[in-house]
Amino acid sequence: MSDARQSSRRAGVVGLGLIGGSVGLALRERGWFVIGADISPAVAADALELGVVDEISDPARADITVVATPVGAIAATVKEMLDAGAPLVTDVGSVKAPVVAQIADPRFVAGHPMAGSEHSGVRGARADLFHGAVWVLTPSEQSSDETYAAVRAVVADLGAEVITIDPAAHDQLVAVVSHVPHLAAVTLMALADTQSSRHRALLRLAAGGFRDMTRIAAGEPSIWLDICRENAAAIAGVLDHLIADLGAIRAQVAADDRAALLGTLERARVARVNLPTGVPLDQPLAELRVVVPDQPGELAKVTRLATDIDVNIYDIEIAHSFEGQGGTLILIVPEAKSERLVGALMAHGYNPSTRPLEQS
Amino acid sequence: MSDARQSSRRAGVVGLGLIGGSVGLALRERGWFVIGADISPAVAADALELGVVDEISDPARADITVVATPVGAIAATVKEMLDAGAPLVTDVGSVKAPVVAQIADPRFVAGHPMAGSEHSGVRGARADLFHGAVWVLTPSEQSSDETYAAVRAVVADLGAEVITIDPAAHDQLVAVVSHVPHLAAVTLMALADTQSSRHRALLRLAAGGFRDMTRIAAGEPSIWLDICRENAAAIAGVLDHLIADLGAIRAQVAADDRAALLGTLERARVARVNLPTGVPLDQPLAELRVVVPDQPGELAKVTRLATDIDVNIYDIEIAHSFEGQGGTLILIVPEAKSERLVGALMAHGYNPSTRPLEQS
Repeated sequence: MSDARQSSRRAGVVGLGLIGGSVGLALRERGWFVIGADISPAVAADALELGVVDEISDPARADITVVATPVGAIAATVKEMLDAGAPLVTDVGSVKAPVVAQIADPRFVAGHPMAGSEHSGVRGARADLFHGAVWVLTPSEQSSDETYAAVRAVVADLGAEVITIDPAAHDQLVAVVSHVPHLAAVTLMALADTQSSRHRALLRLAAGGFRDMTRIAAGEPSIWLDICRENAAAIAGVLDHLIADLGAIRAQVAADDRAALLGTLERARVARVNLPTGVPLDQPLAELRVVVPDQPGELAKVTRLATDIDVNIYDIEIAHSFEGQGGTLILIVPEAKSERLVGALMAHGYNPSTRPLEQS
Repeated sequence: MSDARQSSRRAGVVGLGLIGGSVGLALRERGWFVIGADISPAVAADALELGVVDEISDPARADITVVATPVGAIAATVKEMLDAGAPLVTDVGSVKAPVVAQIADPRFVAGHPMAGSEHSGVRGARADLFHGAVWVLTPSEQSSDETYAAVRAVVADLGAEVITIDPAAHDQLVAVVSHVPHLAAVTLMALADTQSSRHRALLRLAAGGFRDMTRIAAGEPSIWLDICRENAAAIAGVLDHLIADLGAIRAQVAADDRAALLGTLERARVARVNLPTGVPLDQPLAELRVVVPDQPGELAKVTRLATDIDVNIYDIEIAHSFEGQGGTLILIVPEAKSERLVGALMAHGYNPSTRPLEQS
């Protein structure tokens, strides 16, 4: 304990549920001293007992503070941490634009790990929850490059693949791949439950496919109320698409339109088979250097551009120039796609250079 | 091989895809000599090479013939097997009423194992596919008790839990727990694919929940065309419910109606947590004896009644009376529910008796 206290790296975690607890466990496993806080004294005591945090005290007094409260409380909590002098703050909420819109501070970069579990609460926390998961960062124009790079390094060290996108784009995308699928799972489960009151055998016929599809419906309901409120517009829009598409399928079934049905089934099959599954670890990498002007948000701009053209960034370093003319970004990317990023950067007025990395 | 040929138990399997192939593997593992047939010579050759069948010849020349063709070909194939003199025929199709309506023969009992996989074809076959799965039997009024009992014994020996219900009820129930969830998974996957053309990062954000929900969309499309045709009315009806329920959720999200949303989420959570997961193997059992009149369909009637009141039947024996007054059914059921079945049988004019079974 006394060694850990003397460690140079201290992290604060506010909100010790499944995600906050897993962040605490993962950081402790990597040698951080973790200071936790939770609105519930019982949860805080559990977290201490489970070894999720080193102590319960002020999470703003740390090198980095991770806000993992329910979505509705994030903006206020981030402000509170910044006002208390926290040097570096990020959050892990499922909706980003409303939070980013409320925080104009160079010390804040918003984030969202795409990891979860049907378990909930601090007792469901796992140190490896983020291993291989995608962790989205949505820096604002106010976020400093140093904040972005520092948060990115911590998150990547937890084993996550970091993707940088615009906050509004994030909210639209998670409505498609997370929020609406969750509501669809809930609706299917509730529908089967209703129908089972007419025939008791119904739920005993539920095989693997139905179990897979409805697993997430077993999750904690309360967090979804905040998500639905904060991302209501995007969720309603995607639900409209889903309802229209199901109506089209219904018409195809009723009309026995086999060509149209086969088209939809085949398209979904190909898309599902090709669903990306993490990044291969052994591909050749390249180093790409680009001089950027000394303006806030340059780093976020470059990394968002990389995401837009589907180039995954493995690592980032900022080499500041001491001649007052900006700095140099060093990006590590797959060698096969380094020229694509060079082209995109040149199209935006940058002058990048690239070289293959030696295989270690 | 010569030992197997001399075995007294011979099974025929028509259609050597995932299900037919798995039936072949499972029966061979239990000492049956399995005769296979498939419309494709290449698939038949694969099945022989993979050890799914012992030989490719006439599947009607067997003690039991399992028809595992695509759904649209089942009725014709069952008739063909019966016309060729098969003594006992069952099928494994996902839609039951249209098949049962076309076959009036005491030697046929329709069935449907609730097992599958995102893999397809004979190369996806597994001997343990039915272990712990529910296998529905939907005997008609023409099915003889002997046929029902014999098919039931074979299916139970493959490790499946047997549930007996009415064919039309089956088709309605699988529309809820299998067919419409499959179409919903396909629709969600196709929708995400469409949206990803606007933003390349979208599918990289797809985490575990989305992967779980869309896994079945990777399955073979062609089988679903037949299922949608044969069960069109039930599927369209359930899709109408799903579309209406999603519309209600959409309205709740748009209006931030937290009480209504929480009600739906909580109801789905409780239903998912309580989703039945197979039968505990170590519970005390009871033997229930009931004299039944010597009429076709009595056994099916009793077992359907048990399913309706949620009493699982572990084993069945038919002890025919030799005094010409019918026979005695011996049912093995959970001791805790034996009185429930006694009550239901008495309400239907039977006079059952029950006693606890010794624990072995």
